[in-house]
Order: sequence, then structure tokens, then C-alpha cells
Amino acid sequence: MALWGSRWRKSLEEVVEDFTYSLYFDKRLWKVDLLGTLAHVVMLNKIGIISQEELAVLKDEIKNLYLEISNNPDLIRDSEDIHTFVEESLTKRIGDIGKKIHTGRSRNDQVILDLRLYLREETCDIAELLINLRKVLLELSEKFISTPMPGYTHLQQAQPVTLSHYFLAYDAMFSRDLQRLEDIYKRVDVLPLGSGALAGSTIPLDREYTAELLNFSKISDNSMDAVSDRDFVLEFLFFSALTYNHLSRLAEEIILWATKEFSFVKLPEEYSTGSSMMPQKRNPDVAELTRGKCGKLIGNLVNMFTIMKGLPLSYNRDLQEDKPSLFSSIDELKIALRVWIGFLPKIEFDTERMYKLSSEDFLFATDIAEYLVLKGVPFREAHKIVGEVVRFCEENNKKFRELSLEEWRGFSELFDRDIFDLLNPESSLNLKKTYGSPNPVINKDVIKKREEELRNIIDRWHKLKSSLPDLMRLLDKV
Amino acid sequence: MALWGSRWRKSLEEVVEDFTYSLYFDKRLWKVDLLGTLAHVVMLNKIGIISQEELAVLKDEIKNLYLEISNNPDLIRDSEDIHTFVEESLTKRIGDIGKKIHTGRSRNDQVILDLRLYLREETCDIAELLINLRKVLLELSEKFISTPMPGYTHLQQAQPVTLSHYFLAYDAMFSRDLQRLEDIYKRVDVLPLGSGALAGSTIPLDREYTAELLNFSKISDNSMDAVSDRDFVLEFLFFSALTYNHLSRLAEEIILWATKEFSFVKLPEEYSTGSSMMPQKRNPDVAELTRGKCGKLIGNLVNMFTIMKGLPLSYNRDLQEDKPSLFSSIDELKIALRVWIGFLPKIEFDTERMYKLSSEDFLFATDIAEYLVLKGVPFREAHKIVGEVVRFCEENNKKFRELSLEEWRGFSELFDRDIFDLLNPESSLNLKKTYGSPNPVINKDVIKKREEELRNIIDRWHKLKSSLPDLMRLLDKV
Amino acid sequence: MALWGSRWRKSLEEVVEDFTYSLYFDKRLWKVDLLGTLAHVVMLNKIGIISQEELAVLKDEIKNLYLEISNNPDLIRDSEDIHTFVEESLTKRIGDIGKKIHTGRSRNDQVILDLRLYLREETCDIAELLINLRKVLLELSEKFISTPMPGYTHLQQAQPVTLSHYFLAYDAMFSRDLQRLEDIYKRVDVLPLGSGALAGSTIPLDREYTAELLNFSKISDNSMDAVSDRDFVLEFLFFSALTYNHLSRLAEEIILWATKEFSFVKLPEEYSTGSSMMPQKRNPDVAELTRGKCGKLIGNLVNMFTIMKGLPLSYNRDLQEDKPSLFSSIDELKIALRVWIGFLPKIEFDTERMYKLSSEDFLFATDIAEYLVLKGVPFREAHKIVGEVVRFCEENNKKFRELSLEEWRGFSELFDRDIFDLLNPESSLNLKKTYGSPNPVINKDVIKKREEELRNIIDRWHKLKSSLPDLMRLLDKV
Amino acid sequence: MALWGSRWRKSLEEVVEDFTYSLYFDKRLWKVDLLGTLAHVVMLNKIGIISQEELAVLKDEIKNLYLEISNNPDLIRDSEDIHTFVEESLTKRIGDIGKKIHTGRSRNDQVILDLRLYLREETCDIAELLINLRKVLLELSEKFISTPMPGYTHLQQAQPVTLSHYFLAYDAMFSRDLQRLEDIYKRVDVLPLGSGALAGSTIPLDREYTAELLNFSKISDNSMDAVSDRDFVLEFLFFSALTYNHLSRLAEEIILWATKEFSFVKLPEEYSTGSSMMPQKRNPDVAELTRGKCGKLIGNLVNMFTIMKGLPLSYNRDLQEDKPSLFSSIDELKIALRVWIGFLPKIEFDTERMYKLSSEDFLFATDIAEYLVLKGVPFREAHKIVGEVVRFCEENNKKFRELSLEEWRGFSELFDRDIFDLLNPESSLNLKKTYGSPNPVINKDVIKKREEELRNIIDRWHKLKSSLPDLMRLLDKV
Repeated sequence: MALWGSRWRKSLEEVVEDFTYSLYFDKRLWKVDLLGTLAHVVMLNKIGIISQEELAVLKDEIKNLYLEISNNPDLIRDSEDIHTFVEESLTKRIGDIGKKIHTGRSRNDQVILDLRLYLREETCDIAELLINLRKVLLELSEKFISTPMPGYTHLQQAQPVTLSHYFLAYDAMFSRDLQRLEDIYKRVDVLPLGSGALAGSTIPLDREYTAELLNFSKISDNSMDAVSDRDFVLEFLFFSALTYNHLSRLAEEIILWATKEFSFVKLPEEYSTGSSMMPQKRNPDVAELTRGKCGKLIGNLVNMFTIMKGLPLSYNRDLQEDKPSLFSSIDELKIALRVWIGFLPKIEFDTERMYKLSSEDFLFATDIAEYLVLKGVPFREAHKIVGEVVRFCEENNKKFRELSLEEWRGFSELFDRDIFDLLNPESSLNLKKTYGSPNPVINKDVIKKREEELRNIIDRWHKLKSSLPDLMRLLDKV
Repeated sequence: MALWGSRWRKSLEEVVEDFTYSLYFDKRLWKVDLLGTLAHVVMLNKIGIISQEELAVLKDEIKNLYLEISNNPDLIRDSEDIHTFVEESLTKRIGDIGKKIHTGRSRNDQVILDLRLYLREETCDIAELLINLRKVLLELSEKFISTPMPGYTHLQQAQPVTLSHYFLAYDAMFSRDLQRLEDIYKRVDVLPLGSGALAGSTIPLDREYTAELLNFSKISDNSMDAVSDRDFVLEFLFFSALTYNHLSRLAEEIILWATKEFSFVKLPEEYSTGSSMMPQKRNPDVAELTRGKCGKLIGNLVNMFTIMKGLPLSYNRDLQEDKPSLFSSIDELKIALRVWIGFLPKIEFDTERMYKLSSEDFLFATDIAEYLVLKGVPFREAHKIVGEVVRFCEENNKKFRELSLEEWRGFSELFDRDIFDLLNPESSLNLKKTYGSPNPVINKDVIKKREEELRNIIDRWHKLKSSLPDLMRLLDKV
Repeated sequence: MALWGSRWRKSLEEVVEDFTYSLYFDKRLWKVDLLGTLAHVVMLNKIGIISQEELAVLKDEIKNLYLEISNNPDLIRDSEDIHTFVEESLTKRIGDIGKKIHTGRSRNDQVILDLRLYLREETCDIAELLINLRKVLLELSEKFISTPMPGYTHLQQAQPVTLSHYFLAYDAMFSRDLQRLEDIYKRVDVLPLGSGALAGSTIPLDREYTAELLNFSKISDNSMDAVSDRDFVLEFLFFSALTYNHLSRLAEEIILWATKEFSFVKLPEEYSTGSSMMPQKRNPDVAELTRGKCGKLIGNLVNMFTIMKGLPLSYNRDLQEDKPSLFSSIDELKIALRVWIGFLPKIEFDTERMYKLSSEDFLFATDIAEYLVLKGVPFREAHKIVGEVVRFCEENNKKFRELSLEEWRGFSELFDRDIFDLLNPESSLNLKKTYGSPNPVINKDVIKKREEELRNIIDRWHKLKSSLPDLMRLLDKV
Repeated sequence: MALWGSRWRKSLEEVVEDFTYSLYFDKRLWKVDLLGTLAHVVMLNKIGIISQEELAVLKDEIKNLYLEISNNPDLIRDSEDIHTFVEESLTKRIGDIGKKIHTGRSRNDQVILDLRLYLREETCDIAELLINLRKVLLELSEKFISTPMPGYTHLQQAQPVTLSHYFLAYDAMFSRDLQRLEDIYKRVDVLPLGSGALAGSTIPLDREYTAELLNFSKISDNSMDAVSDRDFVLEFLFFSALTYNHLSRLAEEIILWATKEFSFVKLPEEYSTGSSMMPQKRNPDVAELTRGKCGKLIGNLVNMFTIMKGLPLSYNRDLQEDKPSLFSSIDELKIALRVWIGFLPKIEFDTERMYKLSSEDFLFATDIAEYLVLKGVPFREAHKIVGEVVRFCEENNKKFRELSLEEWRGFSELFDRDIFDLLNPESSLNLKKTYGSPNPVINKDVIKKREEELRNIIDRWHKLKSSLPDLMRLLDKV
């Protein structure tokens, strides 16, 4: 086939095998595959397909296989996929009994069971990471509750806010992410096993019992949908892309704040790269990579949508490609969350510089207008008056603080001595009256409510996590 | 500037205006902008910023403007965006009082209020459409509860299922879509107003009261997040892409079934295009367009993710671009749902052809294997035996039905006279024991449960819909 | 169908029409549809299907229709698509002769002809805009050829470059875009007409002659591919997304430079939004919208890929959905290019501020290391020495300029008096030796070469543009 | 950190390392990194930075390292990236001389050099695969040049075409892909080395000489663009997504053709999965996976676009994420091309079944209308007449063939005895007159032209491939 002497190491036949091969990525399902197999055979025993003796042998060998792979994950090899590997490994050990374990089960409902078992566990881990990230953010919010800094719109300095207010904004995003994760969990937590290849089984499989063994809240109620539904994969891919998007927005702040021009933060050495030549240069690599890697999670979502679009029922082999995307998004999200949990508390904030920039005159313009409104001036008029003050200052190269009371009164009789109390970030913050504003008193209340909310979230996830089946415990129990 | 004489109709200045202009798409927010404005001024009256008399004038003119635009939507023009249009229109009518309506409000929190008000309403409409689609699917499921047809895996005929089972599979997808919509609604149903440009207000705006007037369940608790959060837009875009994806899968079935080769359906004339020359040719245009338009909703989601990725806080003008995507996905989803609600019940199913294809010998192979399993043969062995029967039939050009009992017994002593009762789609279906299988008895139960579930969903959405504020009612009430 | 009283303005039948309707977007193809029709009937006359007299009538009415629509585009309405509209309009005017114009032609090859005719023209317009943008960039490059500013890596100040160097970097991107556009043009410039619905025609259509009339370089050579190929649409969507991406990168620079913190630019009033209250605040809306709108072009590409993925031959109605994406990307790209052509020359650059920031000590560290290298010190060692100097300066709070020669010599004997000549941006730039570096002398050469290249590009596009057929000219000629 | 006892195997510090680590994917650049390093040091020798003796040592150790890694790729480990690994490995061997190899070079221009060197090679390999695929398609086109089969529009049988015509349609797509690949190659084939970190170098690096050593056609002319340009990566990702999209369309045909309902093909055992139970069932896994994996390449493109969107100049660490996408698309495309090169020739076509389906009456309707047109009937009238014939046949349950001449004449006097010669696929095909139609005589000509074109393409790629530098040859030469 060579035209200019390219040498292909593999024959066409080997290439096909590589093309269809999935063990290299689905091997991470080995534990859940064993777990699902155990529940299945326990159920088969309950309905009389497998005898008590056979079950005992099966349990022993499932346990042995579990322990051996735990000790040496490299045992997993030489099969085309993980389900084949597990069934073959068991059959090799137990002979004829092995021929019964696939009763009433198909690769089609088995793989989707595994994926759901796996994702339930990962979901709990990710919830834990998100909770920890929120803890970090809430701690930082408390620490910097009264630290003024400029707030931006259009990346232009606009009004004073606090560093706390920034952290609470990001915490709000991750709070929604946690909500979404709980919503998704409901739709992951459904037992598909017992759907067969696509049409169920003539064997009276006790699906409710299997669900109980594996602690699923629901069982699927349409066998064709059960083997071809990947909605929950898409949902998770969306969730992870959105959560990562929040990280990437936070990363963008850090990148900006770490510039010489902003100079709001100094990055910890472990989370940045320096240069032996330019010690001042501390590149925000972790933040840049976070921003960059976000693309992968969006790409993974697009990948999966493209796969599903226009696919008729029921199982089609295209669906095998759900796993590389799903696993990639899980891995990327988990590592990034861990990195930021460690990174954020180590960032050094230059609160002095922040204070200085939040003391710029024009950041108080809106407050001054509202000062007039509270004295009865219609808003648009107040707006206009302050505009005139600003123009006057510009033309005369003066600052608000440098105007005399008379000068102020020249613009409106309503200005009084208390106008001078307004011209600093603390006042600006403390005068804020609306819930959700950066006023430290209000934010203390917000933090309290969020902590309360977080405790409830922890409780709920704790319960979910505890309810997950464990192979060793299940072996003991049944 | 012309190099080869291209003539550009507009000057550079006009081009910039066109570039930043948003009225042509945001004008559909006019009603909710008026509604939000009304609630805002009522609240401003409560806290003493606006007098009773001023409020009366404002209410009158809001009402007049509402009625005028209702009669003549073309009134909306000549402003850069809808918020400017509404404020200017009111100000023109009421003079000085108009200068107060923007008190404590910014374009930034106003636009996101409008979007949330708008999306709440659209969400209810979409729920209604999804519910109606599910009703159609459940009716069809009942109608064809005992209509056998071949089920497919890998687009290869696999086992008999029913036409009902297909509809129930799609109903399961739309059922999840409705669940997701309820989840999203919770996160849309949050009042952002009172967040100002990004930092709240020094005016003691009564946000809880505004929320009550507009029937929001929650108020936002971080002003920077409130003006820059577009999570709910992304969530909706994801939801609509996924729901449309389900339609596109259903469309793919119809396209396949309408081929001469499958010949499962005859399409209604109104939903297909024929040819004056080839009367047999009835092109499944509606289904093809559904499959094709699905791309737009995925593209809209990618668009919005790209916009948000790496955007620092708080409001940035990039966010203006959230609306074209959102409106496009809303419109596309609604029209498609309506089309399919009308389309599905008019499709003619060739149940005879379906029956014939679901009677092919090899579709019963799995049932026969399970017949042996139920008589005690280990599954893999049963599997092997049936394989031998099949090969024998192939080599001797015989059908299962044509084998004598002796011939069957040649493969396994366990075969009995009752094997002949197995070899038709009805038996295959009726013998299915697992929940979620196509057995008509089981599916009747599934349909009953789903109808019950649907009644609850209707109740919940009915309540949500009823709770939505209405401008005329609010005018009367306050 | 209403559950809670939603009123749908349209009946189900009308909804289907709206769903399949395309005139609202394909009407912009009216000119090319007329042009293609003219060429087709001229060819039909040549091969004897249409008589000389019939042709004369047809030409007259094509001309009349062209002039009428030119005067009143609103004439185009009431048909489902533009091809139907044109054929019906002509038939109404010329009676029986109209029955011949569709001879040997199908909607399938007609629509793709129109799209190619249309895209050839748009491509020329876009080339012109890109050329003009490049002219602006090259002019700015010349103007600021010796204006130092800090260059960034990781958004950290790194080494002095020039403002010119920035513009040349962006010009390089648009230069590649123009190359790509020429590449694509080759694949757009292919005549599909004569492919029929999918299988050509038994009528001896003279395709070469039609191609000559319409100035196509090639004719398609597979009728099934011809009617279902949308590669050129995908290529254009990719090209436009990439070009827009370059604009969005440039926009990001402007947004950063316009911050108070960077303060490199002052934006022209017409291209930014101010605030009556905060005159200093000039929001970079045009840049932000450019960055935001980029998402749409990426979304359009994803949309089209999703449509095409897995579509079997030949024409499928899904393909109708190629046009909304294509037109959207064309429009968005054209307006953005025009905006930036006007915007860039009006930006005010604070070259003093740029100079100041590019004079920071550590920006010269690499130059100093290379100074040593040129005196024979191995690079890694030179690196280390300069690192020590930097650390010394930091610890003693000194600047490079403030070190005495003795102090320099303390780090390496090789430092000489000329080291002091190095410590300013001009030297740093002038000392650069490599082609492509920001040395003004080198950049002058680069600009010269690029201008030469641009002249050739203009020549080539001029030729392409001139070769495009024109309806009125064609009417005269044939 | 654990809330419910999750155990994380790694400390936070290790996690950061994992997060920024790239060796696991960039290690495949080892050869090109060595090659680029060799060229760089040879150039440094030419300009006097490295002595003849030093060069000799360097060449020896580069050679040794090359040979060692060739023998044992596992040597590559323990560094953060491949560039560090190579530099450290060399430095370890040659001591002080190693300190010079990075003179005038930065990681930023080095990585992009490597990527371009690597992609040039891969591009040649992919061209070879595409050429081979085209050879297969052209061979099949010749083999089935006169094999009728139904052509489809809207997946409805439309007119007879040939199997050859299908293959030629796909060959047309891959022909365009090859064109695109040549276009991209021009933009990959540019030397970036000598651009330094972002600002070039004060050392008089002879970039033209380096380009000559590495056989680059051009050198970059803007150092900031050179280190941050990833256009060529995006171009390649687009190219590969589009090429794969063509494979996925072909896959869709095969999936349809392999259904029982179509029954056009029998799949080779090695390229499908069977079932021990249902020997008739041969699942088209290879085709399904091709269709499914297509999503990944579209996702990779979206990933990269998301990364680049809005990124300011010059190098940012986000760019590290270009490689996983690029490598993934290269790998997926190559293996899929190889699979299909082997797969296509082994598919068994049921030409009898194809013939039968292409003999259906209504497939000739268009031909009959054109028969009348050629006798002078205006097309729309001819159309109408044939429509009446069809309706008559339907109502009387007759076939075209079964009508008497008198019956035909009842519809139009112009029908003659030769109408009966028309009613078979061969006639339909042979009567086609237009270039690009499925007429076997015409397709023979098309095949001839394409083979000629292919020979030229092979020549051009052969030249490109031969011009690529080889480490061992370069070692000998310099």
C-alpha cells in the first residue's frame, strides 16, 4: 500500500481490532462491573436460576477477582472490553457455573448499568470537591468581608465592592452547580438492568430486588429507552462544562489581577512558573491552563451531542463513544477543582493596592447621585448634576475631595457637609442598603445563610454517598 | 474604500450603530419590560421615592403604552434597545415623573430581570407543548399496545417489540425533558432587580416586595453575580438542544420507516411533499427538517458557551449576545413541538408489514434460548444449542416452524410441543416477564403510571403558570 | 390543545408551512436565481429546446422582473421559496413559454447553483474588506514603527516590542485569512447545474456552455455529489469563524488596553459608550461585542457540521438549513470588518504610557543575557548571571540604571560601559537582529514585502471580481 | 479535606504537577524536538556561537540519544515536558556544551517548531492514506461501472444510478479533502524558530539557514504572531473533521445497505460482529463506530476554537492545550482511513437486489417526461402527462411495462414503440447525456480524468514527503 515508503506497524486486521477496542478506556469500570454482576447473580439465585451452592462459589470468586485486581490493576488486559474481561475471568475460575451469570442479561443493559454505578460514585466525589471549594470561598469571603476593591463593568472600574463580594459571586455559581448536580443525580439513579438487549426477558427477573441490592431509587420502565438513553451522560457533560466555565471565569480574574498593571495579587510559587532571569515574572500558568482546558469540556459535550443526534433506537455501536468524553470530563473537572481548592487560599492579595484603586473619585459618582435622590431629587436630574460636578473637576483638574462645600452647593443646594463623608470606599460600602450588595453587614448575613445551605447540602450528599453499594459489604450481606 | 467598486449603502457611523443595535431582537421583551417597570415604580412608591399621585400617572401611562403597542407592535422602533424605548416612551408622556422611574435601577439588572420574566413565561408554554406531545405519544401507545413490530439494535432486526413500545421509549425521553425543565425553572425564578449596575444601591429598595409583586420565589444575593450570571440561559439552551435531539431521533425513525425498503408508515400529505410525477414519492420533509434544524440548537449552545468562557465579572457587553441564541432556541423548539403534536397522530402505520417483519424466525432465537434456561439449561449452553438449530435451518433452508418436534429434540431433549407456541410475535411479547419489556400487559401498567405522573406534572405547571404576574391584573391590584 | 389557556395564533397546518418555509431567508438569492435561470434558458436555446423567439420573450421578462424587484424588494412574497417565486413570476408573465424553463433542471441543482453564485460574490466583497483592513493595519504599522510598548507573554510584561509589531502580528493573521479565502474560492467556483435531481439528464444539456456564460472555472463531475455537497459551505463557515476569531483576539487587546490599569488607549466616542455621570468611563462596547459575537460564527460552524454528519446521499431536506448559518456568518463577518476598518484609525494611543511601561528594568533582562552570550558566555550561564543581578537589585531596591559599572562587573567581568546603552526600549529594539523581530529597520522591510504581497492579492481578486457575470451584461451579450 | 471519607491518592502539590504536566502527550514530539535542536546548533555553529568541536560532540550525543530512545521509548519520563526532557538528557551527557544549545531559542518558538515539523510528517502520511482510499474507490467504481442501483433523495428511491456513481461521489469528497490538505500544508510549512519568547533575538541567528536545513519554504515574519499562531492547528482540525465527516456519511450508507430491509450488502466477518445465536445478524460495528467517532473530531475543533477565542498576544499557557486535540484528530483520522481502505474491498454487494430495486416503474418517470421533451413537449406539460400515466397505472394496478402502445398513446400521441425500450435501468443510464451523470460511458471518462489527477497528486506529495528532513541524513550532511 505504501506510496512513498511509509511503514505501518500493524496489519489491516490488527487495525480493525484497535478501532473497535475499548478496554483501554472502559477498564476503569471493572469494580462496578463486578458489583453489578454480583447483584445480578444474587437476584438470579433468589428467582431460582442459580442454586445456593453455585452462588457461594460465585461470591468467592468475585471476591477473589476483586482482591487480585485491587492489588494488581495490570491484570486487566487481552479482552476487547471490560465486560468480556470480567465474564471470562470468572468463567475461567468457576467453569460451568460461569455459563449462568449472563442469564437474562445483555451487554447492552450491562454497560449502561456500569456507567450509572460509576457515575453515581464520581458524582459524590465531585460534590465533595465542590463543597470544599465553596468552603474555601466562604472562608475567604469572611476574611475579606471589609476589603474594598474596585468592581468592574466592561472591565472598566465602576464602583467599590469588596474582595469578599467577588468570592461570594463565584460561590453563587458553584452553589448553582451543586444544585444541578443533585438534579442530575436523580436521573442517574435508575436501574437499567433487566432490559436485556432491547426487549426485556422471558425470565422473571426480579428487577426491584436488584435495585434494592444496588440501592437504586428507581427502575427503568422501557427496555428500548433503557439501553439507548444517554441523556444522563449529556447532562453530566453539560454540568461539568458549566462548572469548568465558572472556574475559567475565576481564572480570568486571577490572570488579570496578576498583571503588573492590575497588581492585585501575588501568586504562590507552587502555582505559577517563574523565570530564573526575571524574578518579578510569575506566570499564572495554573489559571491559564484552567481557562484553556475549559475548551475540552465544551468539546466533549459537542462530541456527545453529535453522536446522539439523529440516532434511531435502540442500541447502536456509536454509543460506545460515550465513555471517552464522559471520563475525560470527569477527570478534568476533578483535578481542576482540587487544584483550585489548594490554590485560592495561597494567593496573596495586595489589599492596599485594591484600596487605592477603589478610592478613585469617579467610583463614587453613583453614590452621590443617590445622595441627592434620597434628598428628593429625581434620579435623572441627580445624574445630570453629578455629571456637571465631574466635568468641573476634570476641567479644573480637581478631585471631589478638594471641592469646597460652596463649590458643591454651586451645583445643588442640597449638598451638605455630610457629602465629604461619602468619598471613600468604606462609606460607599456601608451605605449600601440592598440585599445582595457588597455592604459587609449584609454580606455577613449572606455568608451565614450560605453556610446553613451548605450544611444541608453536605447532609444530603452524605446520605447519598453512604447509600452507595460496596462490593465487600454486599458480599457479606447476601 | 472601494477597490473594485463595491458600494456600501451605509456610512461607517451607521455601520457601528447597526453593529451595537439590539432592538430588532430584544423588542420581544417589551411586555416584560413594562411589567418590570411597573413593579419597580410600585415598590419605589412604597419606600417613598415616588408619590401616590406620581404613581397614578405612571400606572395610567404604562397601561396606555401597553394597549397601544398591543394594537400596533410596529410602534416599537427608533431606539437602540427595548429598555431605552420603554423609558423614552414613558418620559415623553409624563414629563418629569419619568425621571424617577430609573431610580436605583440599572440597565444591567433590568435586562436580566426582563430575560427571567420572559423565560418563565416561555418555559410554561414549552411545558404545555411537551405535555401535549406526551399525551399524543401515550394515546398512540395505548392504540398500538399489541401491535408487534421488529425491534432493532445496530439497525438490524433483533427481537419483536410493539409499536407502543417505541412510543413509550420516546415518551420516556420527553418525560425526562419535562423534569429538567422543572429543575431549570427553579433557577430562572430568581429576582435580580435591585442589584444596580453591579453594586446594589444606597436607596433602601424593598426587593422582597418587588419579588412579591412579580411572584419570584427568591431574590438574588450577590449583585455582581446577579448582573453577569447567564447560567440559566445556558441551562435552557442545553435543555432545548437535548429535547430537540429527542425529536431528531424520532424524526430519524420516521425517515427510515417511510422508505420503500422499510414501508412501515405512510405519511400524511400535509406533512410531506409529493411529486406530480411520482405519486408514490412522499418525501418526509418535516422529519428531515427536524433532524436538520437540531444542529441550530446545538450551535446556539456552543455559541453561548463560547461567549461566557473566560469572561471576568461583572457585566460585559458580550452578554448582549445571549438573546439571539436564546430566542432562536425557544422559537425553534416551540414550532417543532407543535408540528410533531399535529404530525404524529396523522401518520398511517402499516401494521401488517410490521407484523410480517416481526415474524422472522431469528427474532425468536433469544426467546428459545430462555425457554431452555427456564427448563434448567445454563444460559451459555442454551445459547449454543439455539445457534445449532439456526445453522441447521440455514443449511437445510428450513424455518423454525417447519422443523418437526423430533428435529427439535435432536438438539435438546428439553424441547417440547409448546416450542411451537413460541414462534410468533404475540407469544414472544406475552411471555416477557420483566418490567419495562414490550409485553402489552406490562405496558398497560406503564402507561397508567405515566398518565398519573403526567397529571401531577400538569398540576405543578398549572400552578406555576397561574402564579405568573400579568400587567393588567397588577395594575388593578396595586 | 390548551391546558392553561395558552392561545396559539396559528393552526397546525399553518405551523407546518412556517416550519418548512424558507423564503424569508432565501429571498436574498433572487438575483442569482434570475441570473442562473437566464444562463439556463440561453443554453436551452443553444441546444434547440427553446426557440429564438421564446428566448427573446424570456430575456425581456427576466429583465423586467429584475428591474421591478430592484425597485421594490417587497415584491418577493407569498411563495414557499425563492426558486418557486421566480419561476411563478416568470410563468405568470409569459404563459406557455414558462413551462420550458425548468427543462433538465431540478430544484436540487438549482439551489446549489444559486448558493455558489451568491457566495462567489460575497467572497469578493469580503476579500475587499479584508484587504482594506490590512491596509489600515499596515498604515498603523508604519505610523508606529518606532513606538515602543511592552510585549506580553502570559499577560505578563516580558520584553519591549513596538505598537507596529502588534499591528503586523494581526496583519499576519488576516493575511492568512485572505490566503484561505482564495483557496476556498477555487472550490466554490464549480458549476453544479446539469446534475438534475441526482442523476443528470437524458437531454443533451451543454454544461460547458452554461459554465462559460456564468464564468465558472469547472463543472462538477458527479451528479449525486453535486446536489448534496456542502463542503464549500463548511469551508466558508470555518474561514469566517477563524477570521472573526482574529478580530476577537484584537478586541481582547483593545479591551485590556482601554482599562484604567493599562491605559494604553483612549477610545473614540463613536465607538464606545460613555456615561453622563462618569465621563472618564468609556466602555469598549464595540470590542466587547466583537468578542461576544465570535461565538455565533463558531456556533454556525457546529450547526452545519451537525447537519452533515452521517447524512447519506443524495439531496436530503436537512440541507435547506445550510443557508441560515451561511448567511449569518457572512453578515456578521462583513459588518464586523467594516466596523474595525473605521474603528482602528480613530483609536488614540497613549504612546507615552506605553514607553514608560516598556522601560521597566526587567524587560531588558533577556537582552543583557544575550549581551553576555555575544561576548562568549554560554547562554545558560549568562542567564544565571543576569538572574543574580536582578536579585541584587531587588534586595537593594535598585534599578539596573542605578548600578555602577563596578557593581555590574561584580557579576561578570565582561560587562562594559556599553551596558548602559542597553537599558532603554529603543536600544532593545534596535539591537534585535532576527527577521520578524520588532526592530523598526526590519519591520520596514516586512511592511514593504507585505505591501507588495497585498498588491498582488488585489490584482488577483480584481480579476476574480471582474469575471463575475452580471445579469444586465449577460442580457446584452446573448 | 474529606467530608465522607473519600481518599485522594495524591497531595495537593502533586495534583498541581499533574495539572500542568504535558510529557504524557507531548512525548511523541521527541524526534522532531531532536531534529529541531540539531538544526539549531548547526546554525549556531555557522554564526560562530558554537565551535566546530562543540558541534561534533553535540552531533554525537544527539545521535546517541536518538538511537537509544528509538530502541526504548520508555526512556522518556520524569520531565514536565518533552523539550525539558531533551535538553536535560543532552546536558547530562555533554556538560557545559549543553548550556549553549538554548541560545537565542525560547520554549515558545521551540514548541511551535516541533508542532510544525511533526504535522508536516503526519500530513504526508494522511495524504498517502487518502490517496490509497481514493485508489480503492476508483477501483470499485471501475468494477461496478454498469451496476444499476436505486439513487435516493430524501432517502426515497428516485432514479436509477450505478454503484459506481456512489463510489465516485465519495471519491469526489476525498478528492476535495486532498486539495484542502495541500492548501493547509503551505501554511504549516513555515519556520517559526528565531522568534524567541516573543521578540526575536539580538543574536544574529541565520533563520534562512535553519529553514534550509529543515526544508521550510518560508520563515515567519512576525515574532509575536509566530509564537502564538495556532491557525494551522485549527485548519488541520477542520480538515480532519470534514474528512471524517465524509467517512461518516459513507458509514451511514453502509449501515442502511446492511439492513435486512435494504439488503444491498453483506459485510465481511472481520469488519462486523455476529452472534453465535443469530447467524444472519451481522452488525455493522465498524461503520457505526466511524459514524460515532466523527463526533470527537468535531469536538476537538470546538475545543481549539474555544481556547483561541479572545486570547491576547503573545504566548499564553492555554496554548499547551492545542496538542491533545491535534494528536487525537490525527490518530482518529489515520486509523479510520486505514480501516476503510481494508473494509471497502471486502464488502459483498448484492447486485441482483440492487438491480431489482432499480427496476421499479416510477424510477423511470423522469426519463419518460424527458422523452416527451425531446419530442417537443414543454417540460411542465410532459411532467403532467407522465403524472397521468402513473395515476392510471396505480388505479388499474398496472405497471408501465404492461400498458399497450394504444394505452400510452391515449396520454400523448408522441409515445411510440421505443417507449418500451426505456423501461429498464440500463436504458435509463445509457440515455443520460450530461457530464457527471451515471451513464457508464461518461463515468469511464470521469474515472480516467480522476486517475490522471491522482497521479499528479501523488507526484506532488511524493516531492513534499521526500523533502522532509531526516535526523540521520542531516547528521551526515552537516
